[in-house]
Amino acid sequence: MKVSELGEFGLIELLAKIVPGKQNLTIGIGDDAAAWQGDTSIQLATVDSLIEGVHFSLSTTPWLELGWKALAVNLSDIAAMGGVPRYALIALALPDPTEVADAIALYQGMMGLAQHFEVAVAGGDTCRSPVVAVTITVLGSTSNQEILTRSTARPGDEIAVTGYLGGAAAGLEMLTNQLQFAPVAATYLREAFLRPWPRIAEGQLLTQQGVTTAIDISDGLVADLKHVCQASQVSARIETERLPIHPAVSDNFGDRALELALAGGEDYELLFTAPANVIARVKEAVPCPVTVIGEIAAGNTGEVSLVDQEGNPLRPPTTGWEHFTAR
Amino acid sequence: MKVSELGEFGLIELLAKIVPGKQNLTIGIGDDAAAWQGDTSIQLATVDSLIEGVHFSLSTTPWLELGWKALAVNLSDIAAMGGVPRYALIALALPDPTEVADAIALYQGMMGLAQHFEVAVAGGDTCRSPVVAVTITVLGSTSNQEILTRSTARPGDEIAVTGYLGGAAAGLEMLTNQLQFAPVAATYLREAFLRPWPRIAEGQLLTQQGVTTAIDISDGLVADLKHVCQASQVSARIETERLPIHPAVSDNFGDRALELALAGGEDYELLFTAPANVIARVKEAVPCPVTVIGEIAAGNTGEVSLVDQEGNPLRPPTTGWEHFTAR
Repeated sequence: MKVSELGEFGLIELLAKIVPGKQNLTIGIGDDAAAWQGDTSIQLATVDSLIEGVHFSLSTTPWLELGWKALAVNLSDIAAMGGVPRYALIALALPDPTEVADAIALYQGMMGLAQHFEVAVAGGDTCRSPVVAVTITVLGSTSNQEILTRSTARPGDEIAVTGYLGGAAAGLEMLTNQLQFAPVAATYLREAFLRPWPRIAEGQLLTQQGVTTAIDISDGLVADLKHVCQASQVSARIETERLPIHPAVSDNFGDRALELALAGGEDYELLFTAPANVIARVKEAVPCPVTVIGEIAAGNTGEVSLVDQEGNPLRPPTTGWEHFTAR
Repeated sequence: MKVSELGEFGLIELLAKIVPGKQNLTIGIGDDAAAWQGDTSIQLATVDSLIEGVHFSLSTTPWLELGWKALAVNLSDIAAMGGVPRYALIALALPDPTEVADAIALYQGMMGLAQHFEVAVAGGDTCRSPVVAVTITVLGSTSNQEILTRSTARPGDEIAVTGYLGGAAAGLEMLTNQLQFAPVAATYLREAFLRPWPRIAEGQLLTQQGVTTAIDISDGLVADLKHVCQASQVSARIETERLPIHPAVSDNFGDRALELALAGGEDYELLFTAPANVIARVKEAVPCPVTVIGEIAAGNTGEVSLVDQEGNPLRPPTTGWEHFTAR
């Protein structure tokens, strides 16, 4: 059997079985980051690759933004655990004809974000490769003993998201198809796709307010909520009219805006669940918009259902990003 | 300018300048691993990629051994800091047509080594890619406050190596050219190339005996000794007749054995320097062969010179592995 027949998540499940039990880890394979008990706090570690032709195209992602984004997707995984990022290791693979100026721009983009969050670039590896590949490992820790995992969602929990959805996917479409929009919308969409801001402060505020379940939206809202439901052995219902779709998306993408918000991915917003009273406290504490979009239901199906404003069921448009399989 | 004109080490130097000062690190970019002060010990972190067609060919490296080796090269970097490896994160990039059985073999090879050294595989990333790429991050720590760096070699220090040299490069030649040797030699050479054993215990014993300078031999003896000389602002002299070349190499590769030992690389032995009395203590403490091969000299040239058994200078055959440039 080929990995393309098994799919990314099937492969991960299979490989995880080769790794023995808990190995003294608080959280092993299958969450946003790994976690283990340090001397005074919980230690967090995560790794993500961006590979040319798979995760990005240099025709739509300039080198500076590639550096920014490669670090941002990893910081977002630390945010989704409620942690503080501390150290980054950069494995950079470049084709021989790469311009040195482009490699420098990549590092500058990365350092712009690293310095904002006071992340130390501790080391790395630089090698030749047929395609550009940026693999970043980020180490972090929690400020207390609480972490956000995927496995603690309970029936009756409200489901909420930070910020807006669909902007990154809309930005990619705009850049790929060279769509012309009003300057304010175009700038918003470009930034949403190329310069995601990891929700570091928000992740920590969630744990402080008593939230225990979160994931960052990288694969797409429905796909990532499904990861939570499967890990928590529950199901979920999204009320589509409640989705916080940014006007730059709804004004310019019409009927497709909903699909972009549900399945687009790469928004790097936090998706979290908690009882209504906890969500109410979070809304007061967190500096960004927080929107309740549905609720966790009983039933160990791991499924996500969608309903429109009249309560009629909708079929999920696509199931989000998965490597090795056609979308 | 292209990165291929600048070379790997020129590029690293340039990129390191974009990263600000010490960032509260004990050791930043430019050693075998990064190091920072933890609560009770020094924390170590390293990352290395193995990329198909650049670092290995699937025609000579079976999947099981690829997994073993991808972890081994990283554990070796922790050994070269005198540390204990603790956690590994695996970023695995595979082409769609990869057989699932091959991905499983890769993980099994990796876990074989991980379990031997009690390294927890904490997490990772799995994605599609045009070529096979395995990027592993290993986190470790020291058992005391001492680490091995590249920058503390002093004139008068003896230069020593663990184990034997040239076996990995000879093994690669044997496999690539399908050379036929006696079974014992063939097995030794195959294992030397495909199943390097990181010198974890030896690295810790070095620090306990007072050694402060070490590097692992990945690029090649001369190239790696040059890294030490440049970081320490000294020069070095190797007496080639003292090199511990394994009989499997000298018997089967004749005149080329010396070149393989000097420039072959991938032996993953420890190269270290210390005053003669410290080296004498190390020889008693360390369970593997330790051979003195030369000495550190004054002169801030960063150069490595070679002399034969009559004391005549020899020209270094090649300068070891460097990405982006022809060898």
